[in-house]
Amino acid sequence: MTQKAWRVGVAGLGVVGANLVRFLAEQPTFAPAGAALVVTGVSARSRRDRGLDLTNAAWFDDPSALARSSIDVFVELIGGAEGPARQAVEAALEAGKPVVTANKALIAAHGLELARLAEARGASLHYEAAVMGGTPAVKTLREGLTGEAVRSVSGILNGTCNFILSEMERTDRDFADVLAEAQRLGYAEADPATDVGGFDAGHKIAILSALAFGGAPNLAAAEIEGIEAVQLVDIRLAKDLGYRIKLIASAERDGAGVVIRVNPALIPLAHPLAQAGGALNALFIEGDRVGRIYVQGPGAGGPPTAAAVAADLADVLAGARRPVFQKAASELQRQVASDRAGRRDKAFIRLMVLDRPGVIAAVSEALAKAEVSIDSFLQKPVEDSGHVPIVLVTHPASATAIDDAIDHIGALEAVVERPRRIRLAKV
Amino acid sequence: MTQKAWRVGVAGLGVVGANLVRFLAEQPTFAPAGAALVVTGVSARSRRDRGLDLTNAAWFDDPSALARSSIDVFVELIGGAEGPARQAVEAALEAGKPVVTANKALIAAHGLELARLAEARGASLHYEAAVMGGTPAVKTLREGLTGEAVRSVSGILNGTCNFILSEMERTDRDFADVLAEAQRLGYAEADPATDVGGFDAGHKIAILSALAFGGAPNLAAAEIEGIEAVQLVDIRLAKDLGYRIKLIASAERDGAGVVIRVNPALIPLAHPLAQAGGALNALFIEGDRVGRIYVQGPGAGGPPTAAAVAADLADVLAGARRPVFQKAASELQRQVASDRAGRRDKAFIRLMVLDRPGVIAAVSEALAKAEVSIDSFLQKPVEDSGHVPIVLVTHPASATAIDDAIDHIGALEAVVERPRRIRLAKV
Repeated sequence: MTQKAWRVGVAGLGVVGANLVRFLAEQPTFAPAGAALVVTGVSARSRRDRGLDLTNAAWFDDPSALARSSIDVFVELIGGAEGPARQAVEAALEAGKPVVTANKALIAAHGLELARLAEARGASLHYEAAVMGGTPAVKTLREGLTGEAVRSVSGILNGTCNFILSEMERTDRDFADVLAEAQRLGYAEADPATDVGGFDAGHKIAILSALAFGGAPNLAAAEIEGIEAVQLVDIRLAKDLGYRIKLIASAERDGAGVVIRVNPALIPLAHPLAQAGGALNALFIEGDRVGRIYVQGPGAGGPPTAAAVAADLADVLAGARRPVFQKAASELQRQVASDRAGRRDKAFIRLMVLDRPGVIAAVSEALAKAEVSIDSFLQKPVEDSGHVPIVLVTHPASATAIDDAIDHIGALEAVVERPRRIRLAKV
Repeated sequence: MTQKAWRVGVAGLGVVGANLVRFLAEQPTFAPAGAALVVTGVSARSRRDRGLDLTNAAWFDDPSALARSSIDVFVELIGGAEGPARQAVEAALEAGKPVVTANKALIAAHGLELARLAEARGASLHYEAAVMGGTPAVKTLREGLTGEAVRSVSGILNGTCNFILSEMERTDRDFADVLAEAQRLGYAEADPATDVGGFDAGHKIAILSALAFGGAPNLAAAEIEGIEAVQLVDIRLAKDLGYRIKLIASAERDGAGVVIRVNPALIPLAHPLAQAGGALNALFIEGDRVGRIYVQGPGAGGPPTAAAVAADLADVLAGARRPVFQKAASELQRQVASDRAGRRDKAFIRLMVLDRPGVIAAVSEALAKAEVSIDSFLQKPVEDSGHVPIVLVTHPASATAIDDAIDHIGALEAVVERPRRIRLAKV
C-alpha cells in the first residue's frame, strides 16, 4: 500500500513536539492506512538545538504561516486558548487542512467555533491528546460508546494535583511543602495555578462533558475549586472515616442541563479512584446500556501525549467522517449548567473548636436548624494548639442547606475557624 | 445531514440481537455521521415471538441468503467458529458488504482468511463486541494506541469464570457448587466448558494479541487452562499469602514470537485485577510510550454487547479505511508461540502432606535438586483429613525447572496428592 507521503507541520517543539518529531522520523509508516507521515515544516519560539534532525523541515517563525504552507496536516502543540495557537489552528482549518492538537484550553474555550469552521471547510479536528495524555478518553467516548446514553463521567484528570495529594498523605507534609518539591522535580509548573487551581481539569471535563452528552464545551458551566485549601488535617480525618481526598472532575446530565464540577472530594478508600495514586489519571463513564466503564493511565508526559497525537494522525489518514463533537456543528449548542439549588450531596464538614463543654450540642443544633442530618461524626483528641478537630459527614442535603449549616456553625463562639467543607463524590 | 438510510441485516436474534434491533428501532440516527440505520432483514433459528417489531424486516431462514440480499451492512450474532456464522460472514464479505460481528470464536479461528477476503472485496470487518462486551478493548488497541509498541496485554476476559472464582471466595464454597448456582442464575451456560475451560478467554486474548503485536490471531499459539481444578483450599492459602486467584489471559512479545496464556494465576490483593470482582472484565495494556493503561467494565450482557455492535455500525457509516487487524492482510502472518522452555515465572505450589517429621526437609531438598529457590513458605495446621496443607511460592524459575521440582516433590512418600501449581501473574 505505498502511497504519497503526508506532509506534517508541527507547531510547538516542547517535550510533546520533540517526542512526536522523533517518533515520526523513526516510524513514518506506523499508520495502518499505509501512507508515510513526514514532518516537512516546524515552528517554535526559539531555534535552539533540541537534538532533533530537522534538515528536511522548513522553519517558520510564525505558526500561522506554517499552518497555511504546503502541508497536508497541521499539528498544534503550542498551548493556550488564545494567541498564536488559536490563530494557527484557525488558519489551518480555514485552509481546509486537518488539525491535530493537544490543546485542552483551546478546545474547551473555542470548541464550538472551531467545530463550525472545520465543518464549513471540510477539515477534521482531532484532540485525543488534550485529555488524559496517552490514555484514550476522547476516542472511548466518541468511537467506543457512539450512541450510548451517557449519564455521567467522573474521575481524576490532573496528574499534578493527584501527585500532590498522594504525597501529602504519604509523607504527612502540607500542601505548600509538597508543591515546592513537585516544582523541583518538574511535576508542577513554575506557575502552578492552572493545575492546582483546578482549571486544567476544568478544561478537560468540559471537553468530556461535551462528548458525553452531545453539546459543545462550555467552561463557564463548570464550578471549579482547586486543591490549595486542602489541609493535612482533612486528609487525616477523611482517612479515619474511610475516605481519601482526590481532586475529582465530574459531569452529569441534570434535566436539560449539566452539572460540571471540579473539586476536592472524598472517595471511599476501596474505590478504584481512591487507589489511583501518584500522577495517574482515571475516568469512570456510566451509561444506560454499557454500565460502568473505567479507564486509567498516565495523564501527561512527552511520550504518552505524543502517542495520542500519533493515534490522531492515523485517524486523519484513515479518513473517517466524524463530526468534531458528537453532532453536526449546526446542531451543536454550548452546554448549560443546571441550577445549583436542586443538587443534593453528602458533605464532610471539619471544624476546629475550643475544648469546652456544650460545643457538640451547639453544633448539632446548628445543623438541625439548617435541616441537615448527620451520617457519621468523629471527634479527635485535643491538638497542640489547644483546639479540638471535629468532623461530620452529612446525609444528602441541598447545597444551600449545607451553606446555611456552615454559616450557623461558623457563627458559634466555640468554633475557632471557618468550617471546612468537602463534598463526598458520587462514585 | 439527511442521507439515505442504511439497510441493516441482523443474523441471530438472541439477547444481543434483540437488544440491537430494539435500539436501532428507537434511535435509527444515533450515528454522528448522520444516516439512519434501519433493520430491513433478519434471520434466526426459529420464528418464535421475541417481542420485537419486525414488520419492516424481511425474514430469511438462511443467514447466508440474508448476507447476500439487498442490505448495506451485515450483522452476525449467531456465534460459533464454523457453520452458518462463518458461511454468512464469508457470503457478506464476498458480496463486498461491511460486516459487524460479536463472534470471538470466528475471528480467533479464521481472522486471517476473513481479513484477506474483506480486503480483496473492499469490505470492512468490525468485531468490537467480540472482546469485553461494551467495554472498548478492540478500539482502544486499534484506534487509541495506533503505532504504539505494545509489550503486553493481560487481564480478566471471562465474566463467568470471574464470577465463579469471586463467589467461591466470598461464600467459601467449592467450584462445582458455585458453578451449579451460576447456571441456575443464568451466569453460566448449560454447557459451561467454553467458559470454565478457558476457551472463551483464549479466543479473546488471541484476538487482542493480534491487534497488540501486529499479526493475525492464532488460537493454536495459546496455552489454555481453565478454572475447573481451582480448589477452595488454594483460594484460602493464596489469600493468606496476600494473593487472589483469577483466570488471567495474557499475551506478551517474546523475541519473534508471542506468549499467549490463559490460566488461573495469583494476583496481589491490592492490584486492580484482584479487585475486579463479580462478572467484571479488566485489561492492562503496557506499551513502550504510553506506559500502563487499564480498562475495566462489564464484559458481557445484552445491552452492553449490543452497544458495542452499534458503535461498530457507526464506524461503518464513518467510513474509516482501516485494515481488519493492524496491517494490510497481505503483510499479516499468524502469530507464532515462543519456546516455553525460555520462560521464567514464579509459581505457587500447594502440597498435602502427612503430619510427620522430616517432610519439610524432604520438600526443600527436592526443590534444591531442581534448582528452584523459595520466596515464601506457609504451613497450616493439620486438617480434619489428618493431612497438612503446605504452600510455597518460588522465585522466578523456568517452567521446566518447576516441572522437575513438582515431579520430585510428588514422588515423596509423605506427599499424599499430586502437588497443585499456579502461576504468579506478572502484573
